[in-house]
Amino acid sequence: MYSFNESREIINNTLSKINLSDNPAELFNPIKYTLSTGGKRLRPALVLMTCELFSGKIDEAIMPALGIEMFHNFTLLHDDIMDKSQIRRNKPTVHKKWNENIAILSGDVMSILSYKYITKCHNDILPLVIDLFNQTAIMVCKGQQYDLNFETLQTVAVDEYLTMIKLKTSALIAASIKLGAILGGANKLDLNHMYNFGENLGMAFQIQDDLLDAYGDLKIFGKNPGTDIIANKKTFLLVKALEIASTEQKVRIYNQLKKKDFDTDKKINEILSVYNELNIKDISEEMIKEYLSKSKSYLEKVSPDDYRKEQLKEIFEILLNRNN
Amino acid sequence: MYSFNESREIINNTLSKINLSDNPAELFNPIKYTLSTGGKRLRPALVLMTCELFSGKIDEAIMPALGIEMFHNFTLLHDDIMDKSQIRRNKPTVHKKWNENIAILSGDVMSILSYKYITKCHNDILPLVIDLFNQTAIMVCKGQQYDLNFETLQTVAVDEYLTMIKLKTSALIAASIKLGAILGGANKLDLNHMYNFGENLGMAFQIQDDLLDAYGDLKIFGKNPGTDIIANKKTFLLVKALEIASTEQKVRIYNQLKKKDFDTDKKINEILSVYNELNIKDISEEMIKEYLSKSKSYLEKVSPDDYRKEQLKEIFEILLNRNN
Repeated sequence: MYSFNESREIINNTLSKINLSDNPAELFNPIKYTLSTGGKRLRPALVLMTCELFSGKIDEAIMPALGIEMFHNFTLLHDDIMDKSQIRRNKPTVHKKWNENIAILSGDVMSILSYKYITKCHNDILPLVIDLFNQTAIMVCKGQQYDLNFETLQTVAVDEYLTMIKLKTSALIAASIKLGAILGGANKLDLNHMYNFGENLGMAFQIQDDLLDAYGDLKIFGKNPGTDIIANKKTFLLVKALEIASTEQKVRIYNQLKKKDFDTDKKINEILSVYNELNIKDISEEMIKEYLSKSKSYLEKVSPDDYRKEQLKEIFEILLNRNN
Repeated sequence: MYSFNESREIINNTLSKINLSDNPAELFNPIKYTLSTGGKRLRPALVLMTCELFSGKIDEAIMPALGIEMFHNFTLLHDDIMDKSQIRRNKPTVHKKWNENIAILSGDVMSILSYKYITKCHNDILPLVIDLFNQTAIMVCKGQQYDLNFETLQTVAVDEYLTMIKLKTSALIAASIKLGAILGGANKLDLNHMYNFGENLGMAFQIQDDLLDAYGDLKIFGKNPGTDIIANKKTFLLVKALEIASTEQKVRIYNQLKKKDFDTDKKINEILSVYNELNIKDISEEMIKEYLSKSKSYLEKVSPDDYRKEQLKEIFEILLNRNN
């Protein structure tokens, strides 16, 4: 069985060899650039690993896995325009390096290419794969819209936040895992368990992402430190803090949120000091552990022998100990 | 056999009944708005008519036809952002009525929905349909990129212009016609003829679009008069004029193109006067007739009986006599 790192390696090797068109260069250079800036390759690695769990091989999962990675990178590219992000994976974003029109159009091409790769599978499972992918892609866009809507809201309930990340982040991780299982020939019951395994994993993953932005080792996180805090992003940390804060603590948070001109370090420190008073780090870690535990329970339910699940189980440790 | 107008009616009826999600409203209202603003429904009508040509029925072509219309509207929505167009079909464009982020994201959803509808076909032709659509969608994006590139070029050769519109406009019209033929069970030779029928029809269609912007009945064209001239758009008319103009005429054209502040009527009149001196209207009409004649010759080659092609042949007249 391939480990997570070996699976990522296979994805990176394949990505470095795919034959993209050269013309017009304005359209395809940004795509090559985006795919070359790295990333964890979490989703396509999961496609390979879950396919292997059921079928013992990965060959037929490689192209669909690339499709998932292509789609993920497409959403990042368009999200970066919408969020006006300047930096992604320590490099300038496409709309910053080129321009917004090029970012829109090369993103559109990546979205189309994701369908091209995902549909490279056996004809008998093709309708199932397409249905899964269509539904997932719409969910991801809905999640992004809710996330954009949150920007203009003063408060967001924890439940609303969780619904948003289930759409924006978990859906694609769950779909990657289910896709691998479909390609591996899993039965219907196992497919449902695998989806739930992925959905809960995705929730944990996103909350940890929020946590890392505030508390991670910022040099290796690949984003500017405290970006979410500076941008008033409605993260799990902020949403939870506002839920449990005293009136005095709320005032301190909102004072920071409403400032137009501010010293970024001061703002980050002030928000973090409220988080610390409220034990937000512990609460978030507890939440992550709960989701991971649920996720693990679904993985345990699927029919392949336990020893075949060892590599996949490593994901939980890798995710808990990651710093980017 | 259904006429062009009856086919469009079927499309409009079906579009008015499709069940799009309501939430988040910010994402789906712009899609409903875009689909409700009308349009000629040329492409989906062609899907129905060419399917009927081969199979004698249209039922199985309706959903894929909607997918084509969805894709076409997606490209218009994103093109309008890139071109900073304010008006489309006499109504404000989505990025103007809402904002750019909403236009990007609702366009992304339309692109995904187009795959959802196009893939609603029999499993045995599904790979063929997906391949055709993937290739076509990439071609359309390439065409848009070349069109964007043209904006910053001083001159564009007629050949380069023709390559651009073959990608940006003809490809989708040809694919619509081929898609209908696939859904209708046409053989491989007929599929090729049908594609060529569509490709040449598309070329004629786009050159006539350019012509209508300058010489059409502006009140019913649905765009502001002379929009292309005002925007220095590299249309067939401009590209051809620059190819055959004398030095003096070129100077008059470039004088207009380089002006930052100008009276729009004056600019339109000055450019039109050079066009008139060069007989650009006649040259364009000649070009349109040539493409239509080629198009017709391919339609004549396909195997169904001639009497079955009558309704489709009406397209040539409708296209020649259209004023919007």
